[in-house]
Parts: sequence; structure tokens; C-alpha cells
Amino acid sequence: MSDAPRKSRSFERKIPPGDSLPRLVCTDCGFIYYENPKLVVGSVCEWSDRLLLCRRSIEPRSGFWTIPAGYLELNETTEAGACREAWEEARARIEIDALLAVYNVPHISQVQIMYRARLLNPEVEAADETSEVRLFSWEEIPWGDLAFPSVEWALQHFRQVRGKSNFTVFTKTHGTQ
Amino acid sequence: MSDAPRKSRSFERKIPPGDSLPRLVCTDCGFIYYENPKLVVGSVCEWSDRLLLCRRSIEPRSGFWTIPAGYLELNETTEAGACREAWEEARARIEIDALLAVYNVPHISQVQIMYRARLLNPEVEAADETSEVRLFSWEEIPWGDLAFPSVEWALQHFRQVRGKSNFTVFTKTHGTQ
Repeated sequence: MSDAPRKSRSFERKIPPGDSLPRLVCTDCGFIYYENPKLVVGSVCEWSDRLLLCRRSIEPRSGFWTIPAGYLELNETTEAGACREAWEEARARIEIDALLAVYNVPHISQVQIMYRARLLNPEVEAADETSEVRLFSWEEIPWGDLAFPSVEWALQHFRQVRGKSNFTVFTKTHGTQ
Repeated sequence: MSDAPRKSRSFERKIPPGDSLPRLVCTDCGFIYYENPKLVVGSVCEWSDRLLLCRRSIEPRSGFWTIPAGYLELNETTEAGACREAWEEARARIEIDALLAVYNVPHISQVQIMYRARLLNPEVEAADETSEVRLFSWEEIPWGDLAFPSVEWALQHFRQVRGKSNFTVFTKTHGTQ
């Protein structure tokens, strides 16, 4: 789902009066389209030492594996959004356990909020935007076929605090060490 | 700065083809205005046992006190956004120390990411959207005149982990205990 204007020819980028940054402004009616960073919410979901991954059936990175994650909706909490995404993509019923990480991906204006979660049962199935779901043991994780860098970050960060009840939430910015 | 359409009469709320939620659609050209939750970034800034607060000079809550905070911009990291807001509102030079809290305010579709920070020097002054800045000792904080609930949450959460180098990041949703 793209959120770019569908008729971009009728928009131009300029600084509106009283503003300090260029915005997309409709050349017909002056409507200002404020673009904001997007919030992605997701979760590393565990069932009996196995972790849930979903094989993407849409671009970008169709065919590659991800944790359930997606854009937060209006009037939704980040926890509720992470649960919704797990259901939409993998029909997974989960319970959020802890905030795991906050990732910045500034070149695509994304902030990602990741949780540690438990599957309430192992009955999962491929659903929206997903061709296949699977519960992987750590050794089976297809590291070379992960969809995005932050999927690997989240899995590795999960591994570091597995079983710990108190830990410092991880932060990471794409492109930094 | 409002991000609502300037000419709302030309937009209607309906579910676009292939979508599942109602969106604002221009009745003239079909342009879809995707509304997304907004990310607010801010910081509790300390200088020698005193905390920086800014008195707002704009609505909402003009005249009330806040920590420096505001909307994240495109292509900006949350840490950089928090530093920018401290500069814009209070001419404060700060160093981010730790992620302090993630707050959900779903009724206004906001997620707030708050940091613990150190002022690099005590030279602060009222700037954008601010009529007055002041470094308060804990006892002096004007609890009855804070601008938003999350300002109090951040100050109280800061207090709980003052001086601690490792702690669990706080999470809170507006309207819950």
C-alpha cells in the first residue's frame, strides 16, 4: 500500500507560508500534504523455543522471511498494532511480554517498535501478505533469506534477553554500528 | 501546525478499492490522504539536579509547562529529533543519555518516545513556541501547571531511574493505570 499521492503531477514541493520545510502542495487547490515518519510495530513471537517467521508474498522483498510487523493504524496502541499484525499475517494469537527494541531507519523515515511476545498456541497459518509461516528453532533461521536488516536485529536482540525479565530496551539506527 | 486538509469540504471519508479502512479521499481528483499516527520525541534534560521545562506560548495548553518535545520530521532519527526540539524550544544543547519511555496516546493517535538527557551547559532561553524556560529543582516543579499528562509521566519516570545506568524502559498508555 503506497501512501504517495496518486496524481503526483498535481503536487509540487514548496515551503508553505509560515512553515520552515518544503511540503507537497496541490497546485490546484493548495491542499498541503504533510508527510510524517511512519511507525512500524512488530514482534518476535516464541512457542516452545521456536520463533515465528512469515514469508512475504508482496513487495518489497517478496519471498523473504520477516517477523510479523506493519504500520500502526490511527487510534491504535503500539502493543495492539503488534498483536493485530501477528493475526493478520500469520493468524497468530500472541501475548506481548515486553518492549524489546526501538529501531530508527531514517532514510525511509521509519521508526520501528518491536516487542517480545509469546504465541498462545502453535496454530499459525499464512494469511495477508504472507505465502508461508513457520516456527523455526534458532539453528534453522534462514539468516540469508531475511527480508530486512531489522528482522535480524530483532531476532538477535531477542536471543540476548531470552528468559530475562528485566533488561535495557535495545536501540539501533540503520547504517550505524 | 495542523495537518488536517485545508479544504476539508473537498474530501470524503470512504474505503478505497483494495483497502480495508476508510480514508480521506478527494472528491475532485481521487487523491487518497493517508492519515498515520504521529511520533512525538522529547527529553527530560538535567543540569546539576535541575530539570528543564518550557512554558508553552502556543495552543494547545498555552501558558503551561512542558519538557522540550515535538513531532519527528522526515529522515530524522528519534534521538536527533529530541535534540532538535530542545534546541528549537529552549536553545538547549543536550546529550541524549538513554531511552526513558515509550508512551501511547491512542485517542489522538500519538506515540511519544522520551529520552533522558544532560544539558551541556545551563544557558537556555525561550525560543520557538515558548514564552519562558527554567531549570527547576524537583521540589519546584509546577505539577499543577504541566501541559500534558505525559510530561508528568516522563518527569516521574526520570526520577525513578535517576543515576541508574541500566533500567527497563517505561511504557504507558494514556487512560490506563
